[in-house]
Amino acid sequence: MTAKVTPRSVDYSRWYTDVVQMADLADYAPVRGCMVIKPYGYALWENIKEGLDRRFKATGHVNAYFPLFIPLSFIQKEAEHVKGFSPELAIVTIGGGEELEEPLVVRPTSETIIGHMYAKWVQSYRDLPILINQWANVVRWEMRTRLFLRTTEFLWQEGHTAHATREEAEEETLRMLGVYADFAINEAAIPVIQGRKSDREKFAGAVYSTTIEAMMGNGWALQSGTSHFLGQNFARAFDIKFLNQKNEMEYAWTTSWGLSTRMVGAIVMTHGDDQGLMLPPRLAPIQVVVVPIWRKDTERTAVLALAERVTAALKDRGIRVKLDARDEVSAGFKFNDWEMRGVPLRIEIGPRDVEQNAVVFARRDMPGKEGKTFGIPVDGVAEAAHAVLTAIQADMLRRATAFRDANTHTVKNFDEFKEVLETQGGFIRVHWAGSDEDEDRIKDETKATIRCYPFDAPEGEGICCYTGKRTDRVAIFTRAY
Amino acid sequence: MTAKVTPRSVDYSRWYTDVVQMADLADYAPVRGCMVIKPYGYALWENIKEGLDRRFKATGHVNAYFPLFIPLSFIQKEAEHVKGFSPELAIVTIGGGEELEEPLVVRPTSETIIGHMYAKWVQSYRDLPILINQWANVVRWEMRTRLFLRTTEFLWQEGHTAHATREEAEEETLRMLGVYADFAINEAAIPVIQGRKSDREKFAGAVYSTTIEAMMGNGWALQSGTSHFLGQNFARAFDIKFLNQKNEMEYAWTTSWGLSTRMVGAIVMTHGDDQGLMLPPRLAPIQVVVVPIWRKDTERTAVLALAERVTAALKDRGIRVKLDARDEVSAGFKFNDWEMRGVPLRIEIGPRDVEQNAVVFARRDMPGKEGKTFGIPVDGVAEAAHAVLTAIQADMLRRATAFRDANTHTVKNFDEFKEVLETQGGFIRVHWAGSDEDEDRIKDETKATIRCYPFDAPEGEGICCYTGKRTDRVAIFTRAY
Repeated sequence: MTAKVTPRSVDYSRWYTDVVQMADLADYAPVRGCMVIKPYGYALWENIKEGLDRRFKATGHVNAYFPLFIPLSFIQKEAEHVKGFSPELAIVTIGGGEELEEPLVVRPTSETIIGHMYAKWVQSYRDLPILINQWANVVRWEMRTRLFLRTTEFLWQEGHTAHATREEAEEETLRMLGVYADFAINEAAIPVIQGRKSDREKFAGAVYSTTIEAMMGNGWALQSGTSHFLGQNFARAFDIKFLNQKNEMEYAWTTSWGLSTRMVGAIVMTHGDDQGLMLPPRLAPIQVVVVPIWRKDTERTAVLALAERVTAALKDRGIRVKLDARDEVSAGFKFNDWEMRGVPLRIEIGPRDVEQNAVVFARRDMPGKEGKTFGIPVDGVAEAAHAVLTAIQADMLRRATAFRDANTHTVKNFDEFKEVLETQGGFIRVHWAGSDEDEDRIKDETKATIRCYPFDAPEGEGICCYTGKRTDRVAIFTRAY
Repeated sequence: MTAKVTPRSVDYSRWYTDVVQMADLADYAPVRGCMVIKPYGYALWENIKEGLDRRFKATGHVNAYFPLFIPLSFIQKEAEHVKGFSPELAIVTIGGGEELEEPLVVRPTSETIIGHMYAKWVQSYRDLPILINQWANVVRWEMRTRLFLRTTEFLWQEGHTAHATREEAEEETLRMLGVYADFAINEAAIPVIQGRKSDREKFAGAVYSTTIEAMMGNGWALQSGTSHFLGQNFARAFDIKFLNQKNEMEYAWTTSWGLSTRMVGAIVMTHGDDQGLMLPPRLAPIQVVVVPIWRKDTERTAVLALAERVTAALKDRGIRVKLDARDEVSAGFKFNDWEMRGVPLRIEIGPRDVEQNAVVFARRDMPGKEGKTFGIPVDGVAEAAHAVLTAIQADMLRRATAFRDANTHTVKNFDEFKEVLETQGGFIRVHWAGSDEDEDRIKDETKATIRCYPFDAPEGEGICCYTGKRTDRVAIFTRAY
C-alpha cells in the first residue's frame, strides 16, 4: 500500500503539503523557510523555464546575469522600494572573515542593481530598448512560508527592460503579461485572469502592476506572475538617462516582470485531487508511464517485450515516456505511485494484451473505468497516445475554466459579499468604486483583497457593492496565498 | 574605427580583460569582486550549459536545487572542509530586520547541505546511487579577482553523488572527469589534460581530486573542471548511512564535481588573438554573420535581398546566423566588430557577388586572404557554411593542441626547471618523487605548482627532476590562474 494524501475536504492546506512531498516535488530544508526542489519537481520547473524562455526569446529578449549581492545603499535609493522590501531583507555583514564596510543585501529582486548597470550602458536613444531577462534565485525573509508558494529563497525569472518612451514601456508591460497568460493557459492549463493590481497591492516602486490571477482548488486566488510599469521611478533613482532624437537628455522608461517557482504550486492546486498530483501533459516530466502486468513467470518475457516496444515507439514520437519494470512492487502499487506523481497517461500491458497485440490506456484526469480505453492497437500506439495527451491537456483547461466560472460570484452589497465569501468562497466579482481605505477595511474584516481589476470586463457600468456609487470599474476580491 | 585590444605581447593580462569587455562578454559590477555577465557572454554560457547538461542526463543524472544558505555549523562538520573554506565565506547575520541566532553561510559549494539531505533520503542500498546535479550560483570571498576566472560570485554546476561501494564512487569520479574532458575537447576545442591533483591542491575534504587542465595562450595553466572522490568523509560528517545487502549499516561513498563560468575565460585565453575573441563554432552564440556591402543606393536592394536569402538558408540548416544590415556603420567597422566578438565565419555579399550569384566566406581563425574563399555558389551555401564551421572547429582544436605540445617541456634538474619556466614558460612535464614540502618550496621559489599527475603518462620510470629519485610518477608543473 502506498501512503495517501490528506483529502482536500478534510484539510486543504495539509492536502497541498502532502501532495508536494509525496509526489516528490520538494522537501523541507534545514534552513528556516527554505526548501529543496527534488529532481521530479525540478524537472517540472525545467519544463516551465523552457516554455517561458522560448517565449521571451521569440519576443526579442536576451538573457544575462547580474550579481546576487546588492549594496544596501542601492535598495535605499527608491523611496517606495525600500519601504516595501526592507522588512524582508537578508543581509551579509561578514565577508572573508571581516566585517564589511557596507552591508550587502542578498537580492530580493534586481531593479536597483540592474538600474545601476543600465545607467552605465545607456547614453543615446540608439542604445534603447534594452530587453534583458535573468534566471536567478532571490531571497525574501518571509514569516510564514509554504513549499513553492512562499519560501525564503525561490527561483524565478525577472525581466528588466528600458525604453525611450512611456508608450513603448507600457506596451512591453502588457506584452509580457500576455506572454505569462499565454504560457499559463496553454502550457499549464490554468485559466488565469489578466488584470491590474490595486494600488495597495502593487509592486513597491511601480507606477502600476499587472498580474495573472489563478483560482486554486479551494477557491482562493494565487498571483501567478506580475508585470510592472515602473515609469521613470527607477530611471530617476539610478540616473538612467539618454539623449533623445531631439538631442535632449531624458530619463528612460522601465518595466520589470517576474514569474517564479510559485507556478509549481499553482499547478498543484489547480489540477490536483485526492489521488495526488495531476500534471498537464505539456509540462509533465513524464507524460506516459508504461506498466507491464504479469502473474506467472512464463508471461513475463512476452509482456516485457511488448512494453519495451511500446515505450520505444512513444519515445520515437517525442513523447516523454517511462517504463516501470520494477519487480519488487505490484502493478497496483505502481498505479497509485504514478497517479500520485500526476503522470497524465498510463499504458497497461498484460498477457491478454499481448495476445491481442493491443494495450490499455488509463487517463489520470478521469478516475476509474471512465478514463480507461481497452484494445488500443499496438500499431499506431504512439499516435494514439499523442492524441490522448492533447485531449487531456484541453480537458484539463476546460475543467479548470468551468471550475473557476462556477466559483465566481457577483454580489449586490457588502453583507452578501461576506456571506458568499464565507459560505461559498471563490472569486467575488463586483463593481468597485471604493477607496484604498475601503479596501483595507474589507481586508481587515474578511481577509479578502482585490486580486485585480480584470482587463476583460464586459459588465459595463454598475453599482459599487461597497459604496453604492456608479462606476465602470470591476474588481475581483477573494482570499489569496 | 573600432577600439583595439591591448596586444597579447604587450600585456597578456590587459589583453584578457580588454577582450572580455570589448567583446561584450562581461562588465564589472558595483560590488567588490562581482561581475555582470552580459547577454553575449551569457549566451555563450547557455551553450556551455546545454552541452554539459545533455551529457549529464545521458549518463543518468538528474537536476535538483538545494538552498543558497547553509547553517554555519554544517560547514564546520568536516574538518578539512572548514579549514579550506572558512577564509572565503560570505555570511548572512541579519534576516528580516533581526540578528540571526545561527549565521548563514552563502554557499561556497554544497557538499554539506546536500550531505544533510542525502542522510535523510538514504536508508537502504536500494536508495543508491543518488546521481544529482545542481546548476547554481556560489560565493567565495576572493582577494584578487578577474572577470570569469576568479570572481566572488560565479555560476557553475555541482554534481553530488552517493554510492553503495567505493569502486562505484571512484568510477563515477572518473566518468564525470571524462565527461568534462569530452566537453572541453569536442565543444570548446580545448585540449585539456586529465589527471589527479597533488594533495596540496586537492579539494578541502576530498580523498583525492581529479582535474582537467588547459594551457592558456601565455603558457599558464587553467584548472577548468574538477571531479572529487570524497570517500566516506562527508558521509561520516553528515551520517549518510544505509543498510547494505548483508543487512549491515554502512556509510555511503560520495563524489562531487564542478565546472563553472571559468570555462568562458578558458575559451577566451585558449583561442583569442590580437583581433579579440575567437569562438569554437559549436559554442558560438552566433556562428555566422552575414555582412552586406554596397556603395550606391542602387546596389542596396539587390545586395540586401541576397543577404536575406542566404541568412534564411543558413537558419533553415540549423546554423545560428545573424544578418548585420546596420546602415549607420561601414562594412569595415562590421568586420572588426564581429572579429572582436569571435564569430567563426563571416559571409560577405557585395554587388559583384549578386551578379555572380555567389558569396565570399571569411574564416575568423585564419587572418587575411588566407581565410577567404571567393565565389561560393549561393546554391548549397548552407551546406558549404556547415562544412567550413566543422573544419574551423577541428582546426581550432588542432592548433590549440599543437600550441600546447610545442610549449610542453621536459627538464633534467631543478636549475633547468627554473630556466625553462623563466625563459619559455608553458608546461614543465617531469618525473616527480618530491614531498609536499618540496612542492611548497618550488611554489615559493618559482610560483609554479603541480597542476596534475596526468593519467596518460607513457614515459614510464625516470628520475625525479628535484630529488633525483627514480619514480614512475609524472607531474605537470607551471604557473596557474
